[in-house]
Amino acid sequence: MEEKFPARGYKDNVLADCFEDAKRYFLDAYHQVDLAHAVMLGEQGIISQDELRTILKALRRLDFDAIRAREYDGTFEDVFYLIQQEIGKHCDAETAGKLHTARSRNDIDVTIYRLQLRELCLKLIGSAVDLRKVFHELAAEHHETVMPAYTHTQPAQPTTLAHFILAMSENLGRDIRRLRAAFENMNRSPLGAGAITTSGFPIDRHRVAELLGFSEPTVNSYGSIASVDYFTETLGAVAALLVNIGKFAQEFMQMAMVEFNAIRLPDGYVQGSSIMPQKRNPVALEHIRAIGSKALGQTLGVFTAVHNTPFGDINDVEDDLQPLIFNAMRDADRAVSLFGHTLRSARFDTENLRRRAGENFIAVTELADTIVRRENLPFSLSHKIVGKSVRLAIEAGSDVTHEIIQEAAMDVLGHELELSPEELAAAVSPENFVAVRTIYGGPAPSETRRALRVERDTADDDNEWLARTRAHLDNARMVLGRTVDERIS
Amino acid sequence: MEEKFPARGYKDNVLADCFEDAKRYFLDAYHQVDLAHAVMLGEQGIISQDELRTILKALRRLDFDAIRAREYDGTFEDVFYLIQQEIGKHCDAETAGKLHTARSRNDIDVTIYRLQLRELCLKLIGSAVDLRKVFHELAAEHHETVMPAYTHTQPAQPTTLAHFILAMSENLGRDIRRLRAAFENMNRSPLGAGAITTSGFPIDRHRVAELLGFSEPTVNSYGSIASVDYFTETLGAVAALLVNIGKFAQEFMQMAMVEFNAIRLPDGYVQGSSIMPQKRNPVALEHIRAIGSKALGQTLGVFTAVHNTPFGDINDVEDDLQPLIFNAMRDADRAVSLFGHTLRSARFDTENLRRRAGENFIAVTELADTIVRRENLPFSLSHKIVGKSVRLAIEAGSDVTHEIIQEAAMDVLGHELELSPEELAAAVSPENFVAVRTIYGGPAPSETRRALRVERDTADDDNEWLARTRAHLDNARMVLGRTVDERIS
Amino acid sequence: MEEKFPARGYKDNVLADCFEDAKRYFLDAYHQVDLAHAVMLGEQGIISQDELRTILKALRRLDFDAIRAREYDGTFEDVFYLIQQEIGKHCDAETAGKLHTARSRNDIDVTIYRLQLRELCLKLIGSAVDLRKVFHELAAEHHETVMPAYTHTQPAQPTTLAHFILAMSENLGRDIRRLRAAFENMNRSPLGAGAITTSGFPIDRHRVAELLGFSEPTVNSYGSIASVDYFTETLGAVAALLVNIGKFAQEFMQMAMVEFNAIRLPDGYVQGSSIMPQKRNPVALEHIRAIGSKALGQTLGVFTAVHNTPFGDINDVEDDLQPLIFNAMRDADRAVSLFGHTLRSARFDTENLRRRAGENFIAVTELADTIVRRENLPFSLSHKIVGKSVRLAIEAGSDVTHEIIQEAAMDVLGHELELSPEELAAAVSPENFVAVRTIYGGPAPSETRRALRVERDTADDDNEWLARTRAHLDNARMVLGRTVDERIS
Amino acid sequence: MEEKFPARGYKDNVLADCFEDAKRYFLDAYHQVDLAHAVMLGEQGIISQDELRTILKALRRLDFDAIRAREYDGTFEDVFYLIQQEIGKHCDAETAGKLHTARSRNDIDVTIYRLQLRELCLKLIGSAVDLRKVFHELAAEHHETVMPAYTHTQPAQPTTLAHFILAMSENLGRDIRRLRAAFENMNRSPLGAGAITTSGFPIDRHRVAELLGFSEPTVNSYGSIASVDYFTETLGAVAALLVNIGKFAQEFMQMAMVEFNAIRLPDGYVQGSSIMPQKRNPVALEHIRAIGSKALGQTLGVFTAVHNTPFGDINDVEDDLQPLIFNAMRDADRAVSLFGHTLRSARFDTENLRRRAGENFIAVTELADTIVRRENLPFSLSHKIVGKSVRLAIEAGSDVTHEIIQEAAMDVLGHELELSPEELAAAVSPENFVAVRTIYGGPAPSETRRALRVERDTADDDNEWLARTRAHLDNARMVLGRTVDERIS
Repeated sequence: MEEKFPARGYKDNVLADCFEDAKRYFLDAYHQVDLAHAVMLGEQGIISQDELRTILKALRRLDFDAIRAREYDGTFEDVFYLIQQEIGKHCDAETAGKLHTARSRNDIDVTIYRLQLRELCLKLIGSAVDLRKVFHELAAEHHETVMPAYTHTQPAQPTTLAHFILAMSENLGRDIRRLRAAFENMNRSPLGAGAITTSGFPIDRHRVAELLGFSEPTVNSYGSIASVDYFTETLGAVAALLVNIGKFAQEFMQMAMVEFNAIRLPDGYVQGSSIMPQKRNPVALEHIRAIGSKALGQTLGVFTAVHNTPFGDINDVEDDLQPLIFNAMRDADRAVSLFGHTLRSARFDTENLRRRAGENFIAVTELADTIVRRENLPFSLSHKIVGKSVRLAIEAGSDVTHEIIQEAAMDVLGHELELSPEELAAAVSPENFVAVRTIYGGPAPSETRRALRVERDTADDDNEWLARTRAHLDNARMVLGRTVDERIS
Repeated sequence: MEEKFPARGYKDNVLADCFEDAKRYFLDAYHQVDLAHAVMLGEQGIISQDELRTILKALRRLDFDAIRAREYDGTFEDVFYLIQQEIGKHCDAETAGKLHTARSRNDIDVTIYRLQLRELCLKLIGSAVDLRKVFHELAAEHHETVMPAYTHTQPAQPTTLAHFILAMSENLGRDIRRLRAAFENMNRSPLGAGAITTSGFPIDRHRVAELLGFSEPTVNSYGSIASVDYFTETLGAVAALLVNIGKFAQEFMQMAMVEFNAIRLPDGYVQGSSIMPQKRNPVALEHIRAIGSKALGQTLGVFTAVHNTPFGDINDVEDDLQPLIFNAMRDADRAVSLFGHTLRSARFDTENLRRRAGENFIAVTELADTIVRRENLPFSLSHKIVGKSVRLAIEAGSDVTHEIIQEAAMDVLGHELELSPEELAAAVSPENFVAVRTIYGGPAPSETRRALRVERDTADDDNEWLARTRAHLDNARMVLGRTVDERIS
Repeated sequence: MEEKFPARGYKDNVLADCFEDAKRYFLDAYHQVDLAHAVMLGEQGIISQDELRTILKALRRLDFDAIRAREYDGTFEDVFYLIQQEIGKHCDAETAGKLHTARSRNDIDVTIYRLQLRELCLKLIGSAVDLRKVFHELAAEHHETVMPAYTHTQPAQPTTLAHFILAMSENLGRDIRRLRAAFENMNRSPLGAGAITTSGFPIDRHRVAELLGFSEPTVNSYGSIASVDYFTETLGAVAALLVNIGKFAQEFMQMAMVEFNAIRLPDGYVQGSSIMPQKRNPVALEHIRAIGSKALGQTLGVFTAVHNTPFGDINDVEDDLQPLIFNAMRDADRAVSLFGHTLRSARFDTENLRRRAGENFIAVTELADTIVRRENLPFSLSHKIVGKSVRLAIEAGSDVTHEIIQEAAMDVLGHELELSPEELAAAVSPENFVAVRTIYGGPAPSETRRALRVERDTADDDNEWLARTRAHLDNARMVLGRTVDERIS
Repeated sequence: MEEKFPARGYKDNVLADCFEDAKRYFLDAYHQVDLAHAVMLGEQGIISQDELRTILKALRRLDFDAIRAREYDGTFEDVFYLIQQEIGKHCDAETAGKLHTARSRNDIDVTIYRLQLRELCLKLIGSAVDLRKVFHELAAEHHETVMPAYTHTQPAQPTTLAHFILAMSENLGRDIRRLRAAFENMNRSPLGAGAITTSGFPIDRHRVAELLGFSEPTVNSYGSIASVDYFTETLGAVAALLVNIGKFAQEFMQMAMVEFNAIRLPDGYVQGSSIMPQKRNPVALEHIRAIGSKALGQTLGVFTAVHNTPFGDINDVEDDLQPLIFNAMRDADRAVSLFGHTLRSARFDTENLRRRAGENFIAVTELADTIVRRENLPFSLSHKIVGKSVRLAIEAGSDVTHEIIQEAAMDVLGHELELSPEELAAAVSPENFVAVRTIYGGPAPSETRRALRVERDTADDDNEWLARTRAHLDNARMVLGRTVDERIS
């Protein structure tokens, strides 16, 4: 005889997991959707005011703690049917059944996915906004803190900590822009799409969208069910963000190595060893990378998982997959949040940075430029003279002295340079190197101050957007609550 | 004794590949960058007008065909040094050397990567715009063509071909929006960032940006070299696009199976078999998916490849990686372009679609809704009656007749329905099903006509943007050429 | 003042998650490791027999339910320190402290990761072995069930269900081989590697390995901590498996479409629709693909996450990442297990398969071959005659009749064929098509019977290995328990 | 009117690329397959000896240089038909047509994919074997070279360079094992599978396999066409390898930073800067990571691309995808080959490594262990004493002196230790630290010497396998050539 629904192999491998996930992620969203849909049905006259009142009262009486405590036992199909069943306990079955007029599990599901993702996306934007603020605080403090910039893993040229950190801030600003765009895309209501073709009932999709805080309804009902770019756009933005976060975190991890000694984490972010008594591991920085990597792995994993699945209502993009999306979002947020906390508490060793900016001949690009201007030489010749000077200095175990540079000039040009010892000294000073780079986007303190002002302006815009958006969602929720209250009384 | 540069293991495994790639992708970009930089140096008085003239003349004399014909032999480091060397053949070494004042291979490289990506991104946007136009043509033709929509791989409800295709069009419209945003992000000039800290020379970064058709310079010079979101944003948008393309393509592949017989490709897009004489394989559709999959694999692969690399000037995001980005972009474009061509030539079997929309009881959702309204029953009961009717009809091998539905009603309700045979007939007609779904986003022809008008408006905006952007780039190139002419004469 | 450990930002974003994960995955493994290590320390005389007894008694008194009930509150660093602390409640602190002689959290951690992965890998192998058994049962039943094989999404040639399913079985057999190899690699004990350089105490790594059921110790202690191929090999094998599972599942999903009607799932594996009363969705098959896709996404995600991290003791491959590995393994197992259950309960419509094997001219390759042999023509000419015959038959709306083929032959060759009507009929029969393909690996029943025997032999070997391995682990656990009993008493 | 084959959109986006790829990768493989198939047809009497001679002669006359020079113009479908056409120029069409008896493009295609992959896989194994040999040479040289091992990015404990490198060697040894297993899997001949069901002709699949150097035929003909694990197994092994290579490369990159100064690359592997005269960039190490990352991205990309495609003959796993597989393999080989070359030429600064092994208190784990043994204390107390000593020493700016440790002991225990100054000195010496770690897998020179011997034994086995396999393929090719000669004459 045929196994009855649900067969054990199906229950254990599918439904039990889906039920646990639904309890974890969707109960509140389900409830909001039920309330908003009922209110609209009443407003449109699809159900009577009495029916509306009965349904709303029943919805208000649902005991979600009891639902959360249920283990999946196969006596109901899924959380949707369980809630239907629970509603039926608080009003007559006939009226309870009217709640499901003009909708389908399909449009409900895509709606609750978007509602959950909306929360996670806003949280992530909030953490990114916080991290950027830390960047701005650090930049404001360190316009004059010279430090070595590296290229190809080697010290290359002096810059400042402000300049270095503003590079990250600009990047993160674009990440926030992308997340905002993704939010606007996801924040549309698919409710009313029904199974896939809307409904023959005169529903008002705009009204439901408004009650749930969405900016507007999605349009095409087939696309409302079938489209996945509400999450692929988000995850594309998150992937770009995580690549950046990983890059930034590694820079600070390196700075925290004893060989660099440029940043120090406070005890709250450091772990020791169970057997090596000398250890002081800057683990918070490590975890930023590790958790961010896990988040990125999951993010790309979602793309792999949805690829080559049909354009339509299909499980591949639904209950099984959504928790992976949520995990990716949550882990991304953990990484970014941890980054902000850690960096805000860290201390930079500016003395050490300054000292290292004066080593390894990293200011000699400016010396070469100075020679170009002072002696009217092409850069290629000047490059040769300075290159030779560096080699001679390394052999002599000294800095590039005036004698050395003249020896090199004789060798390359056949004559000495006009350059005075004072001019040489200025040319190889990291402070001078930085100070003369007033070009748009350069490290000169005047320029980083200007750039920071611009950064803070766009950050202000993000802050305002975030506050406005949160207020809008809170307000929609309050209005829905109040509306329900009114309809009930 | 130490191996001289380049060691064989380095030459064979690295430099030879980089040189081939540079010849393929970057020669023109290098040239434009050289011209623009020289013009700016002259305008800023960093080099004299005579020097400028000499340099520009030498640049104009470069024989790129000869460069393209070179095999890498290790006598020069890379294409940058080769070009420097070639310039030196057309003017004195001293003046040639002045071209490299106030810049670095670092800012040149990021610039040429962006220039190449810019071309590929515009091409892809163009193909997407074309495909969307095909969607609109098809939608316009098929507002009344009913067909079955599927959920969970089973026929579910009637819809129309226009409705189905507009779902794709909306999706693709958002893809184009994302690609446009990515284009705006990449279309900024990093030139002047130098090695990583700009320069001590009074260069004008805005001027160079203008001469190369960029909208503006990037800001922070460290970030100009280190940032990767000019391509990660693009690839995030491309990944979302490719997931959609893959989904769409599969729908049409299924329609082209003999079991569905809903679409027919012309001979130009079909291949036979070398041994099965009866075969007529709709391979063009297959290749859309296959090439798109390859593109997606490469796209995600770029994220994997750049992850956990330093934030700075590092090979991981440079010459080795860029060809993978370009291949991903090119393959994405091939898939989208092929899609447009194939679909434009295809023929839909509207008779067959209509016939299948009337089978498998897929209009009975509307019957259930009708009963809800006609008999004032809750949806759950109506669902039960119709469900039973379908089972009875299957057993009887018939449609849902009036007798059957009354039998089911008796069984469920204990009494018959008011519903007349005429009302039943209307309720299960696919045309009626579609016609009553006039809800925002629904399949009713009046609504798909409205939706198509909106779609065409946003498409018009994209078309204009594309035309304007191409014109801007063409114009910048022309202006640069003319400016060089003037400076030379 | 500096934040004390753990800072809130670190606790909330890192330690709380790690603690929840540790409770879920590692408590039992920790316990086994503690017991085995203590026993070895006693045997080697590193601790005294009294100390050993005291420690083992304390370990036996640990209340793991109480530990499981703890919420992370920051009063201890992690589960390791919590357990240390709990041990200290059951014996004097000094003796408790001796348990941690000659080991480190590092080697403990890698060991418990391997212990957990070992369980998950064995479970997956078990599910794969079960699925393969279902394949064999189906093959045994369907050696004569002809069906169409598809190429390029079109019906191509007749084959049998046994042949089709044996293709999957062979593939799955290789998947099991890969998983077995991965198991052998992971089933080695890193304990004794200490922090990264072993220990100065005379520990016995082989003895600990034996007590924990490992086949032997890993060798190099640096590599014991730093290597990740114990999981990358596993996940590489899992990725290959999941690609196969996804491919197989899709074949059956297509067969379950109404347009194919080749397989029917029992009610236990089918879900309906909340609004479409006619629906009977074969969701179990969908979930195989969906859960497998999620598993694959996570699997590849792990590779992305660990890439470009140091070779050493680093969080990137430790507590943050391991749950992603476990989720990937668990989801892979869910997909495979669900597949076995679903397929075992499914029914094939052999009549329908037979009918479709006779349609669409798919046997005409054999007709072309027959003409080659019968008329001594080159294949290319025969292909032409048959191709023309098919076109004529389609136009006539008939099968390929003797008249048609002679017309085609006249057209191509200028003369008719010797082929008799009886020979023609045999040549286009799907049964004949299959019967003559007795070539090694072909679909002829005699050949699939032979192939099935070989398959079952290798399956027997896998079954035995699995039983032996499980028995070995059970036995090791029992021996360790008994040894602890003896040492205590 | 319908566009004729090939339509421009199909030709430009699909066929032109496929043709270029086929010319690059498959011409030789096609030729070998044609020769082997023809010889077998002759031996089986499926074609006559005259026909065989005619075909072989025609095959021998093919001008592959001319074919390579062709641009795709749409006058033939693909390289298969072009070769057929070319054969027809060198013998009568009728005989030429007989070559295609009892085979299909399907089985040919899978065969040439395997032949190409076989070459690339062997090359990669060769490069891995070479790299491992470099590891062994370095280990043999550096059994006594002490150096700091890091955990969590901080110096942790002394080890030796030999120990560190043997960790990599063991890992790489397992990579080679996986690649060998993958080779054995791919090295099977699908020829004779025909379109998907073998053939009605009495072909000998074993004979063809032998002539092409395969170890045996694949079995099930459906699976021969549909299975992809011949490349997914390979790519799974390659992914694991690349993760390892990336990890190893990063360790050496760090060692090459000026802050570590532990390894020096010769000039042949170093590049300078176009504007920073002091730069000496260890770019070869960077490119190992970068090229390996690109290879990994492509490798995982293949999994994404093939996922959720049908199990059957489908373009998704064929001409469009194969070049991505080959690129992944080739880039993997470039990274590994470059690694071997670079490392073999590098010089380690053993003085500096020794010095840094004595800094940062990294030997104090042994001090703690010594105290445990000397004073019979639990490790936890000893850990406390040593931890305190380290803090006191850092404050004092000194090493851990005898006075300091006694002060710490007083503080922790209330009494001083027995430990003498001489015992202390021994306990904190990196050489002693290493010397006492004679445990299986530990860094003591006696143990690394033992471990190296074992490593070399397994390496010998790999070397022999590689030589034998190459010889077998060369021999098969020679035998086929000779057989063709005999049949012709």
